[in-house]
Amino acid sequence: MPRKTTHSNPRPPSRLHRRSSKLGLPAGSLVHTGERRMLATALTLFNYDETGLEEVRFDNIEASHNYQPRYRKIWLNVHGLHDPAVMQEIGRRFNLHPLMQEDILNTDSRVKVEDYGDTLFVVGRILSYESETESTDMDQVSIVLGQNFVLSFQEQPRGALDSIRERLRQDRGNLRKQSSDFLAYALLDVLVDRCFISLDALTEHTEKLEEDILDPRQRDILIRLHRARRETLALRRVIWPLRESISSLQRGGSKLLQPETLLYLRDVYDHSVHLLESIDALRDLQSGMLDVYLSSVSNKVNSEVRMLTVITTLFMPATLIAGIFGMNFHYMPVLEEHNGFYWSLAGMGLIAVVMLSVFWRSRWLK
Amino acid sequence: MPRKTTHSNPRPPSRLHRRSSKLGLPAGSLVHTGERRMLATALTLFNYDETGLEEVRFDNIEASHNYQPRYRKIWLNVHGLHDPAVMQEIGRRFNLHPLMQEDILNTDSRVKVEDYGDTLFVVGRILSYESETESTDMDQVSIVLGQNFVLSFQEQPRGALDSIRERLRQDRGNLRKQSSDFLAYALLDVLVDRCFISLDALTEHTEKLEEDILDPRQRDILIRLHRARRETLALRRVIWPLRESISSLQRGGSKLLQPETLLYLRDVYDHSVHLLESIDALRDLQSGMLDVYLSSVSNKVNSEVRMLTVITTLFMPATLIAGIFGMNFHYMPVLEEHNGFYWSLAGMGLIAVVMLSVFWRSRWLK
Amino acid sequence: MPRKTTHSNPRPPSRLHRRSSKLGLPAGSLVHTGERRMLATALTLFNYDETGLEEVRFDNIEASHNYQPRYRKIWLNVHGLHDPAVMQEIGRRFNLHPLMQEDILNTDSRVKVEDYGDTLFVVGRILSYESETESTDMDQVSIVLGQNFVLSFQEQPRGALDSIRERLRQDRGNLRKQSSDFLAYALLDVLVDRCFISLDALTEHTEKLEEDILDPRQRDILIRLHRARRETLALRRVIWPLRESISSLQRGGSKLLQPETLLYLRDVYDHSVHLLESIDALRDLQSGMLDVYLSSVSNKVNSEVRMLTVITTLFMPATLIAGIFGMNFHYMPVLEEHNGFYWSLAGMGLIAVVMLSVFWRSRWLK
Amino acid sequence: MPRKTTHSNPRPPSRLHRRSSKLGLPAGSLVHTGERRMLATALTLFNYDETGLEEVRFDNIEASHNYQPRYRKIWLNVHGLHDPAVMQEIGRRFNLHPLMQEDILNTDSRVKVEDYGDTLFVVGRILSYESETESTDMDQVSIVLGQNFVLSFQEQPRGALDSIRERLRQDRGNLRKQSSDFLAYALLDVLVDRCFISLDALTEHTEKLEEDILDPRQRDILIRLHRARRETLALRRVIWPLRESISSLQRGGSKLLQPETLLYLRDVYDHSVHLLESIDALRDLQSGMLDVYLSSVSNKVNSEVRMLTVITTLFMPATLIAGIFGMNFHYMPVLEEHNGFYWSLAGMGLIAVVMLSVFWRSRWLK
Amino acid sequence: MPRKTTHSNPRPPSRLHRRSSKLGLPAGSLVHTGERRMLATALTLFNYDETGLEEVRFDNIEASHNYQPRYRKIWLNVHGLHDPAVMQEIGRRFNLHPLMQEDILNTDSRVKVEDYGDTLFVVGRILSYESETESTDMDQVSIVLGQNFVLSFQEQPRGALDSIRERLRQDRGNLRKQSSDFLAYALLDVLVDRCFISLDALTEHTEKLEEDILDPRQRDILIRLHRARRETLALRRVIWPLRESISSLQRGGSKLLQPETLLYLRDVYDHSVHLLESIDALRDLQSGMLDVYLSSVSNKVNSEVRMLTVITTLFMPATLIAGIFGMNFHYMPVLEEHNGFYWSLAGMGLIAVVMLSVFWRSRWLK
Repeated sequence: MPRKTTHSNPRPPSRLHRRSSKLGLPAGSLVHTGERRMLATALTLFNYDETGLEEVRFDNIEASHNYQPRYRKIWLNVHGLHDPAVMQEIGRRFNLHPLMQEDILNTDSRVKVEDYGDTLFVVGRILSYESETESTDMDQVSIVLGQNFVLSFQEQPRGALDSIRERLRQDRGNLRKQSSDFLAYALLDVLVDRCFISLDALTEHTEKLEEDILDPRQRDILIRLHRARRETLALRRVIWPLRESISSLQRGGSKLLQPETLLYLRDVYDHSVHLLESIDALRDLQSGMLDVYLSSVSNKVNSEVRMLTVITTLFMPATLIAGIFGMNFHYMPVLEEHNGFYWSLAGMGLIAVVMLSVFWRSRWLK
Repeated sequence: MPRKTTHSNPRPPSRLHRRSSKLGLPAGSLVHTGERRMLATALTLFNYDETGLEEVRFDNIEASHNYQPRYRKIWLNVHGLHDPAVMQEIGRRFNLHPLMQEDILNTDSRVKVEDYGDTLFVVGRILSYESETESTDMDQVSIVLGQNFVLSFQEQPRGALDSIRERLRQDRGNLRKQSSDFLAYALLDVLVDRCFISLDALTEHTEKLEEDILDPRQRDILIRLHRARRETLALRRVIWPLRESISSLQRGGSKLLQPETLLYLRDVYDHSVHLLESIDALRDLQSGMLDVYLSSVSNKVNSEVRMLTVITTLFMPATLIAGIFGMNFHYMPVLEEHNGFYWSLAGMGLIAVVMLSVFWRSRWLK
Repeated sequence: MPRKTTHSNPRPPSRLHRRSSKLGLPAGSLVHTGERRMLATALTLFNYDETGLEEVRFDNIEASHNYQPRYRKIWLNVHGLHDPAVMQEIGRRFNLHPLMQEDILNTDSRVKVEDYGDTLFVVGRILSYESETESTDMDQVSIVLGQNFVLSFQEQPRGALDSIRERLRQDRGNLRKQSSDFLAYALLDVLVDRCFISLDALTEHTEKLEEDILDPRQRDILIRLHRARRETLALRRVIWPLRESISSLQRGGSKLLQPETLLYLRDVYDHSVHLLESIDALRDLQSGMLDVYLSSVSNKVNSEVRMLTVITTLFMPATLIAGIFGMNFHYMPVLEEHNGFYWSLAGMGLIAVVMLSVFWRSRWLK
Repeated sequence: MPRKTTHSNPRPPSRLHRRSSKLGLPAGSLVHTGERRMLATALTLFNYDETGLEEVRFDNIEASHNYQPRYRKIWLNVHGLHDPAVMQEIGRRFNLHPLMQEDILNTDSRVKVEDYGDTLFVVGRILSYESETESTDMDQVSIVLGQNFVLSFQEQPRGALDSIRERLRQDRGNLRKQSSDFLAYALLDVLVDRCFISLDALTEHTEKLEEDILDPRQRDILIRLHRARRETLALRRVIWPLRESISSLQRGGSKLLQPETLLYLRDVYDHSVHLLESIDALRDLQSGMLDVYLSSVSNKVNSEVRMLTVITTLFMPATLIAGIFGMNFHYMPVLEEHNGFYWSLAGMGLIAVVMLSVFWRSRWLK
Repeated sequence: MPRKTTHSNPRPPSRLHRRSSKLGLPAGSLVHTGERRMLATALTLFNYDETGLEEVRFDNIEASHNYQPRYRKIWLNVHGLHDPAVMQEIGRRFNLHPLMQEDILNTDSRVKVEDYGDTLFVVGRILSYESETESTDMDQVSIVLGQNFVLSFQEQPRGALDSIRERLRQDRGNLRKQSSDFLAYALLDVLVDRCFISLDALTEHTEKLEEDILDPRQRDILIRLHRARRETLALRRVIWPLRESISSLQRGGSKLLQPETLLYLRDVYDHSVHLLESIDALRDLQSGMLDVYLSSVSNKVNSEVRMLTVITTLFMPATLIAGIFGMNFHYMPVLEEHNGFYWSLAGMGLIAVVMLSVFWRSRWLK
């Protein structure tokens, strides 16, 4: 019966990745390891500086061959990574290290920051909470920061970066005037902010579960709790290395980062620490809920054993009395008593009442 | 049934905060994220130095435009943060960084210390123990220390800082003579001292629970214990980053802190470590109580199963005997026995007595 | 029933201290926070150097006003801290920092070492094992080491320092010749040695409990184990900061400590590490005992359910047979059988014997 | 019965090694401690540089005496370590330290990296997933990196290094042109990649178990889970020191490692961290599964006790009524009732129906 | 009943030491705290260098007064420490610090390494596995390394050092030529190797237990497991500080240690890390076994409750039917049925068969 309920809730996507498909190839081999969703590659280019902004969209890499940037700074965003040729061409133009290209294509890279000297490479995750499955979907986002350019790579467009595009177009928050590292910071900030949405959804889900725990009509509490804990751990595993990465960025002293940007990075770092603390609070709450649930199960066994004992205790003496007066001895003078039958019934009732009152006094009945 | 009891105890306020309302805005956006309690903003200004003290109260930010300080040092305390314009004006006058202003308005910032060069920024929590709900309410307190000024921001007046106001007015403990960092230390000291009150209340509550654990008349022990553990963890999560922050203040070597003040900060640090140790002691105690409680539940199941066994064992043989003598075989010579009936009753009693004495010897009955 | 047993064992003194009585006062306020046991303050002064020793006892602080030391080094021991005036006078004469005076009077300070430049301040605990309550009493001992003096403060005389007094009087171990820091070391050494007594008592108590765990006649095992774990944790919380303090003394490089004394401090440090390791061993043992106890409770439920099953299984078939032959059908030829009664009894017996032998083979009966 | 099932699943090989066979010998004694599988020693030599490649295979060490290398760089791979003479000869020629030789022969050395100045010594494990036993076999691989040579030692050929041999033969990835340290890196990379295969198999196995946990037809869940956890821990114990070793290689600053190779080592390090994180995720999942399983067992006891209670409750009143009307009192007027028999049956049925409906309302039946 | 079994297995020696017998004495007091086994003190002296070896045995310290060493290096081994005079004399001759002497006599010192400038002092434990009690006996071994001498102190001769004596006599491994620190290393190496024997025995014992866990004929599994865990923890507590000590030796940069010896110390360090990892693997295995055992107990309760339910369910309907037909109503036409008796029996049988088949389908029976 629990089985069926389990089937009706679709199993959340596995968080435990598999890498073995790429084994045996030399490091730096460009193989796309994501699921081959047939989305066309799309390149969106923002060419801007404080004097102006040009937004161009290429449908394939060849279309961009003759493009000449008019402004000083570039942000190139790439959706759809299934074609290694695109990566190779971008890597050639922006002079990216083969290992970096490999990590961008491999859609299961670890969250990290790597300093390649003239470029900074950040691997993050973008979280989208899917309300119908009550789970969080995770996509890899790779960000490359160079002297005057920022590259960002995603599997699928998710709308997360739209707010930054809008700020660029309207030149809000001086985004155009600031150097490229500030744009990279803004992308990171969006990634961290998306985590708050997932965490809020998880928190709400957990607090709903907390109310359900003592409701006897609720079923599958434990499996739902198990899943909530799994989701929480999965979230933690995204944010923990993110925090480490931002912290190493701050300490790293890359010449690509302006001092003012470092101040803003400290703010993102602060948010990621806040996220971790909230996740740990959530996990503590979930552990406590598990204790309460397991103990409430024990208490139920307890009260049912007690009910069994009460019933047995009420009926056994009466049954014995009935058995005694059903014996066939030839000389049983009590049977001759005129009101014997009624006296015996009264005796049975009396014993039951006495027992009930004893139970009542020892607070056994509820 | 436990449900109802749960409903009658109001659920303590959620300790798991939500941040998603501010997402998508650029960092440094001034949005107030607290609950919009309609308290008017109130600014209280202490202008003082060793020569005198002037206390002014402004009901809105405009009223303060023409104020000219007479003495060298300033302490400005602000209640009610729902109006970003107030923050903006104060930020402009005291030259505060936009990120700092954002953290002050966001009433769910992490407890921390940040050095902005010419100002030190401290985010703390002020705890007020509410005796009727048996829970601790937490409000953010932001403290900004500058060269000759201290700013403090709170959501609601809670009376916690009254003792410092009184000490300033009466010039107790040389508070006026000391430089501004000493006043900031005094504010921090009050925050830490308030934690002791909450901890003492929690400790008392826990020790009361410890006595109730073995009292069979008490119900909902586990839920009450679960809540006490939650409260303890929430307290710990305030004090842990506070300790870290004070420690980083001590090591940070900010030029705003006098050596003598560092000695006093060591004292506050010491108190925060003491708090943490007491909280950990409390958590150990609560874990032990959980073990004792769960085991006492097991023991109850145990003793009830035993009682069931005793009853079954006492009545089954007697019932069988009665059944045997109730059989309708034509030739059952025992039935002709004159005292057969009484002998059979005596047999039933004897077996019960023998069993009882065996149980008694094997220490089964109590 | 367990309640009563709980009451007869007096509850050990609470280890979770309360501090709220001192809140709201400025730091450095001299308030005595211990229980106001009405013991007169007693000052014992040892004035000594390699040439001689003078021992003086003052009953109040005024009596000491005209005292002129004859020898170079001083050890002043103070019992009874309820009179802040005494502290104030001593602090004035020996030039002690207000925060240090506050910590001495506050009888619940954290165990710690603080370097005030010209003085070293150590807060420790002196443990006295009370055999009648089977618990350990803890008193604060504050030690101040200056250039040529050692001050020690205690709530109550406990005899712990008598051995050092005797060594000074008889000049054993060159105690008089050594500089004051060696006397301070000797005091610390006594504190650590007293911990061994408490640990030994706890260890013995725990090993006694370990034997009782499987003894079915013992009751309240879990509560006794819970208390032993509490005591162990309390002991650990004294020794852990003590170890940290001694370690920081060793590394601190105070000019008050001679190199030779550092070698002896290494020995005390070594003892404190040894204490911690033994305590952790004790805690591991107690955890293991809890597992064994909880599992033995499970096993008991198990064996009682099994016994219930055996009884039910033995009697139910017999009772059914008796019931069958007690039916009142008019045509029941078996009832006419001459030895039917005896055959039916034999049948009941046979079934019981067969069942018993089956149980015996499947190792159910013990 | 569980016993038999255990026997039919062959026990996975013990992961807890024994070393005592070599005790009492001086360190540096060359004794082979692996199982003496009678595989002939086989030496495979790749002599290569950017100008060409020569591949030679010797069946014994004597055959190699007259070999003269034509190219600059050497990779010597040795299978079968049971003959210490081979090790001794190789050690003499390549000038290996006795302790290094001892570790190569001892097939249970710890995973580690050691810098002997002119050589770097790496001990790793090569994992081969055996699908029939559902377990992972581990073999030691020792790699020695010198100025122009790489030595690798294995107990058995496992095909793991074939991909590197092929890349050398076809000169893919510039393997011939690169210095020897790049070949050593490639070997390490293969070791780490093999771990991914084992981890993927374990992950699949665990997710299969997760589905089985709530399937009541599955038996031995706990033992299978116990084994999966054991395997996971064993895998972790291989990768943890590997990560540490690669990290120390990176920091170590050996002059044998080119800067470019360090960049690739960072990639291997990254993979090993990824492995560890995935393993920890797997362990968290397994812990959660254990909780779910244990609780589902509790729930089963619960529902069976409830069923027992329901049955007892349904039949006991009916049995009592039948007993009452089977009493032999002389004056029992109810027995004269014409439809008494049917009324009594109806009463029994009615009580049962009432009880069933009460149970139904309190959601006891399913 | 379990009690008796416990008594028949002798309790392993207590691992929790007592120190209180030495309290109150000044540090450096020479008191022997071991059990006073009346073994005569025995001094064995190896006087050797690369030119030769002389082996002398003194039965008391006086006998050695006139001994003049012929060779450059000395190894003095002392058995039996109950006579402080011997220690005092040796301390005087080799100029040992009083604290070192105290630690040698105190047979319960912590495992550690201390640098006294011109001497290095190592306290270790020598383990002897006692097969009859299935436990490991631990004796303190103190090693003092000076410029040209090594002193070693043991309570009892255990044969552990015989292999080194033999290597010295036969000059294997260049032991005579090497400086004294190499001999000290060899002694340490023996101590670590002895740990492997104990660990192997414990591992074997644990794997035996693992097989017994599911064997229903085995009793006292939990107590045996508890003891195995205790032994494992005791072993860990010896090796952990040993590893720390060797590590601090390596880093310490004592001038007594040659660079070549440091390489060998790295090997011992490596072994101690290996030991720790194996011990942790063993502990993980034991934890897993505890889970499996506790769950198998739960499963047993489960299957026994199920059996009880089956029996009750099979017999209750039949008993009720028998009771119904045993009622004494005057008008019970069914009783007149000629084959009523047989039909009723058939009904009872049919109900039982139907129930059995339902149980069979829901996989309740086995």
